[in-house]
Amino acid sequence: MNNVIAADIGGTQFRVGLFDEDGRQLLVSEGVTVRSGGREWMLEQIFELSNSLKAKSDYPVRACGISFGGPVDFINQKATSLASPGWSGFPLSAWVNEKLGLPCLMDNDANAGALGEFRFGAGRGTSSLVYVTLSTGVGGGLIIDGKIFRGKDNLAGEIGHLPVSDSGVVCACGAHGCLETVCSGSAIARTGQEWALRRPDAVARMVELSGGSVEKITAKAIVQAAAEGDLPAAGIIRESGRWLAKALISVIRILNPDKIVLGGGVAQAGKLLLDPVQEALEELRSPAIHSTTEVVFAELGINSPLYGAVALALEAR
Amino acid sequence: MNNVIAADIGGTQFRVGLFDEDGRQLLVSEGVTVRSGGREWMLEQIFELSNSLKAKSDYPVRACGISFGGPVDFINQKATSLASPGWSGFPLSAWVNEKLGLPCLMDNDANAGALGEFRFGAGRGTSSLVYVTLSTGVGGGLIIDGKIFRGKDNLAGEIGHLPVSDSGVVCACGAHGCLETVCSGSAIARTGQEWALRRPDAVARMVELSGGSVEKITAKAIVQAAAEGDLPAAGIIRESGRWLAKALISVIRILNPDKIVLGGGVAQAGKLLLDPVQEALEELRSPAIHSTTEVVFAELGINSPLYGAVALALEAR
Repeated sequence: MNNVIAADIGGTQFRVGLFDEDGRQLLVSEGVTVRSGGREWMLEQIFELSNSLKAKSDYPVRACGISFGGPVDFINQKATSLASPGWSGFPLSAWVNEKLGLPCLMDNDANAGALGEFRFGAGRGTSSLVYVTLSTGVGGGLIIDGKIFRGKDNLAGEIGHLPVSDSGVVCACGAHGCLETVCSGSAIARTGQEWALRRPDAVARMVELSGGSVEKITAKAIVQAAAEGDLPAAGIIRESGRWLAKALISVIRILNPDKIVLGGGVAQAGKLLLDPVQEALEELRSPAIHSTTEVVFAELGINSPLYGAVALALEAR
Repeated sequence: MNNVIAADIGGTQFRVGLFDEDGRQLLVSEGVTVRSGGREWMLEQIFELSNSLKAKSDYPVRACGISFGGPVDFINQKATSLASPGWSGFPLSAWVNEKLGLPCLMDNDANAGALGEFRFGAGRGTSSLVYVTLSTGVGGGLIIDGKIFRGKDNLAGEIGHLPVSDSGVVCACGAHGCLETVCSGSAIARTGQEWALRRPDAVARMVELSGGSVEKITAKAIVQAAAEGDLPAAGIIRESGRWLAKALISVIRILNPDKIVLGGGVAQAGKLLLDPVQEALEELRSPAIHSTTEVVFAELGINSPLYGAVALALEAR
């Protein structure tokens, strides 16, 4: 019997945990990412938490897996994030190997999420799945024939940048009409803020849940207001769900995977999101094409990438 | 040294050929499909042509591969075409095995086309490709990690039914706005016929090449007129190419394959089609997502599925 260490390094939060070889969680520590601390600060957290977990483990710790919240050059096991300067080109797995004496594998959080759900969550028993993470942005990871499929340029699964709208909204990526511009935490928050300008009466509860400021309406507050029965908030989530369905139809037509697994913070809206997705899929479906691809929520909730890191650790040599 | 027999059974034409193990074509017979003859007539052609090729072969013929122009249940090696009644549920490979004494594998023409290009055409040296056949309808086949990927319901690669248009045109599949409604032989012919009603002067050359009748304007005539420099015809091809690009962006975002290979009759338009595709891909591309997926034409032209049948024969046991 051996244990493994799994880390989920995100832009806002991070988690480091001890798991057994069957993916059972033994201990998990989490913290808020101090962005100003940059790479060095984060490496220190990983180093200390990992050593502490190693010391507490009843069995030898034999490997480490990492879900990284940014682009990863998997072949060379390097972070390639340009958004946070310190990480660009950093060989994180080699660093773990050297500092912690553990073999290590890392991947980006979308692929890790797909792997986590495939091995330990909603994707158990499937051979292909598409994991869609609905967070501040929208990402995706593909499992095909039981393995992560990365594509030619490590860009497979860019669900967030599927063109779904003919309107001119410019995406963070520079293209127009991407799913991310109409169905993501940012898009939901922006829609709430736009509502506030036109219909201040309608956003009262959303504003209240966001701490009182119209400019600070968050996606989280909108999801919460919708869950309480606030109709305008539910309408915003509904609209996002319908756009998501449009993207999922393309996923189904191209890949017809066993399952599409929805994860990330926005997926916490649950039925309020899934009902309009299913409704729009039904409207868009073809009577002659009987796809049985299921659309389900991540079973591991926001921990899909962390469990993916466990799966990566189990593959690390 | 052994040879194999490959057959491409289509709704309008069929081909049966003798190939060596390296995929070199030795002899090919082709004919026009007599639809009224149904399944029995076609089986007779396959039987006689195959026997004749076996007799002419200098080396033992060890297997047969078939590209079938309709849906195929690959696991059970049965045609499942509902369009031509006699074929539905027919175990064609078992029939070949029994009648010709050869192990046989068959697949639908889109998958066979993908396999043909992968093994012997534009896809040599790649590990993933998407083959798009632009014919009367639009189909597609996926190669992922060197293998055909079929999806949960044998529906992976339904590129023709990617929703690309918000307009209400109803597709043969019953859904709305499918690629097939705006970029296919039928769509191109229909657009020519629509032009004829509004602007009879503009379609003069297309009508001439179609045998003089406005109602009979064909996609082939439009492609030919465009190739001669007829501007309205080139405009119709251009418009189809731009719609195609919209679908290909989704393919690139989801799969980021090594190559997208365009085959089928409409691809014979060559540069007239590919230029607007590349132009629209450039307009739609994201400055932040550097995909290097190439869009190229099938190297085997209309014979991609026949060469796929060769690849199937080489796998038949």
